[in-house]
Amino acid sequence: MSDQNRTEISELGEFGLIDLIKKSVVIRNESSLKGIGDDAAVIKYEADSETVISTDMLVEGVHFDLAYVPLKHLGYKAVMVNISDIIAMNAVPRQITFSLSISNRFPVEAVEELYAGVSLACEMYNVDLIGGDTTTSLSGLTISVTAIGEGKKEKLAYRDGVKESNLLVVTGDLGGAYMGLQILEREKQIYAESPKVQPELEDCDYILERQLKPEARLDIIREFETLEIVPTAMMDISDGLSSEVMHLCKASKVGVSIYEDKLPIDQQTFDRARDNHLDPTTCALNGGEDYELVFAVDLADYDKIKHHPMFTIVGHFVEESEGYSLTAKDGSNHPLEAQGWNPIKE
Amino acid sequence: MSDQNRTEISELGEFGLIDLIKKSVVIRNESSLKGIGDDAAVIKYEADSETVISTDMLVEGVHFDLAYVPLKHLGYKAVMVNISDIIAMNAVPRQITFSLSISNRFPVEAVEELYAGVSLACEMYNVDLIGGDTTTSLSGLTISVTAIGEGKKEKLAYRDGVKESNLLVVTGDLGGAYMGLQILEREKQIYAESPKVQPELEDCDYILERQLKPEARLDIIREFETLEIVPTAMMDISDGLSSEVMHLCKASKVGVSIYEDKLPIDQQTFDRARDNHLDPTTCALNGGEDYELVFAVDLADYDKIKHHPMFTIVGHFVEESEGYSLTAKDGSNHPLEAQGWNPIKE
Repeated sequence: MSDQNRTEISELGEFGLIDLIKKSVVIRNESSLKGIGDDAAVIKYEADSETVISTDMLVEGVHFDLAYVPLKHLGYKAVMVNISDIIAMNAVPRQITFSLSISNRFPVEAVEELYAGVSLACEMYNVDLIGGDTTTSLSGLTISVTAIGEGKKEKLAYRDGVKESNLLVVTGDLGGAYMGLQILEREKQIYAESPKVQPELEDCDYILERQLKPEARLDIIREFETLEIVPTAMMDISDGLSSEVMHLCKASKVGVSIYEDKLPIDQQTFDRARDNHLDPTTCALNGGEDYELVFAVDLADYDKIKHHPMFTIVGHFVEESEGYSLTAKDGSNHPLEAQGWNPIKE
Repeated sequence: MSDQNRTEISELGEFGLIDLIKKSVVIRNESSLKGIGDDAAVIKYEADSETVISTDMLVEGVHFDLAYVPLKHLGYKAVMVNISDIIAMNAVPRQITFSLSISNRFPVEAVEELYAGVSLACEMYNVDLIGGDTTTSLSGLTISVTAIGEGKKEKLAYRDGVKESNLLVVTGDLGGAYMGLQILEREKQIYAESPKVQPELEDCDYILERQLKPEARLDIIREFETLEIVPTAMMDISDGLSSEVMHLCKASKVGVSIYEDKLPIDQQTFDRARDNHLDPTTCALNGGEDYELVFAVDLADYDKIKHHPMFTIVGHFVEESEGYSLTAKDGSNHPLEAQGWNPIKE
């Protein structure tokens, strides 16, 4: 960014910045009664709805690296991950608040880029930006998003609702976001060593998009309505399938049996994993950030799901005493292990 | 803190930390249907209630200085300031989410201290901790709190409801928190220069408490109920009375007239301001962080308020064309100026 296009955040001040943000806000939901501009926002859902609330914090250098994530993508993804949590309750996202602390190494134009991504996500998922906070930091960028949505009591999907013999179902395909990240990290390394080498990103478009612009599966919630399916339990896959399935099992006091040959893996994910000497199955089981849904349903719903292109049945739940197992393609059995990403340990 | 009492956050891991936090959580409100432990929290208010949501971000080195704010106080205050925003809508706070990013210079014991303050605030204001996020940061501590509350449609107090000739009323007294901060900053400086000098904190107990442990005025919301008062507009005083009153005026398209001799200033604030060669009126008008309420009411409520110990009528609203004025003790008129604290500029 050339210096003549750089506006210091301090020139604009807090209220100037709020005005800038407010300008791009569009209110789409009747339930958003009061947005930005008062001590608090005000919403009201239908009388028989329950209110679902989720929040996440994203820290520069821990959750994202601005060396290869553009600010607009970052803003989009920060909103998306929270919306995904609302969807994982089988609820419909309606509102978000978006807060950030940002150091003065960023100009106003960077904040605009970030909010362009927020606005795009709001448009895509039909949610309203109703509040937030913007402040300086001594270093780096920290983002905090709270998403709010509504769901009917009898349809909300908690983690502890799995019954033995329920089917284990996933949406979309798995491991792509993880493989996309491997490609980006490799290219970053190559660039650091020899900046003139052209990046090798051929045949990576799908997995790069899975990493840079994953989508929360709001379409699945609508499909459940159409098919009259109510999952007995559900989570979104942010830390990897193994890890999420174990959460479901522990909360519901059940075991699980997963079949390796059922795992949905895109051809590009498969090929690039092999190129990188990685096991595609491990990528699918433990690679995070796909933001697909994993859920449990009653066996009675089998016919609605078995040939549906959005869904893949990858196993079934069993008695708690049977534990967590993976049946490999050769028929051998292995204990399932969670190796999801832990933001505290790293 | 001695090293043998230090537990590294990385030893505990993310889920260990969540378990630690969950242990201290008490659910007090029927409206909290699902708290920590699922993809999202679930709440449900009475059918005729609206849901009020506010969020704030607090950054080490910008909003707080751990050199003189203990972590427990910080946790308490972070919750309190958000609850104050809910109260400023004339709504009752019910739930909070609390997120933090924290560097590895802090041990688990520091996180426990912080949450001890959060728990205390939850107890004091009868709210439930229903969610949040805990992650590492590369440096420093950042906190993000979202508060959620409920209010009746006909009682919610927005900024834009002031009518000309409404009374301008404040609760409690003003300028104390600002004077408390001056004392703390002076002592920090003295300590830096000569660590063995005993701090001079005699006769400062009230203003230090105003700075370190200010209270949101939930009692006022209850008093409004008892007195059957509905403010036409309200804000909490976080940036200073002048600044907040101007927000009310701008949103409501009215002017205001404030009387210097009516401003409620505690004797200790007054005396320490004079000792420090500061004008007590300026401290009361522009000192922030008292978290008192400033509101507008109809003239018809005058009798309910005039001798009430919780309230002080400090002026009245006028036509927009008359502007914002302060009538000094000597009868002279001065334009009112906002010099509130701006977290972006500093």
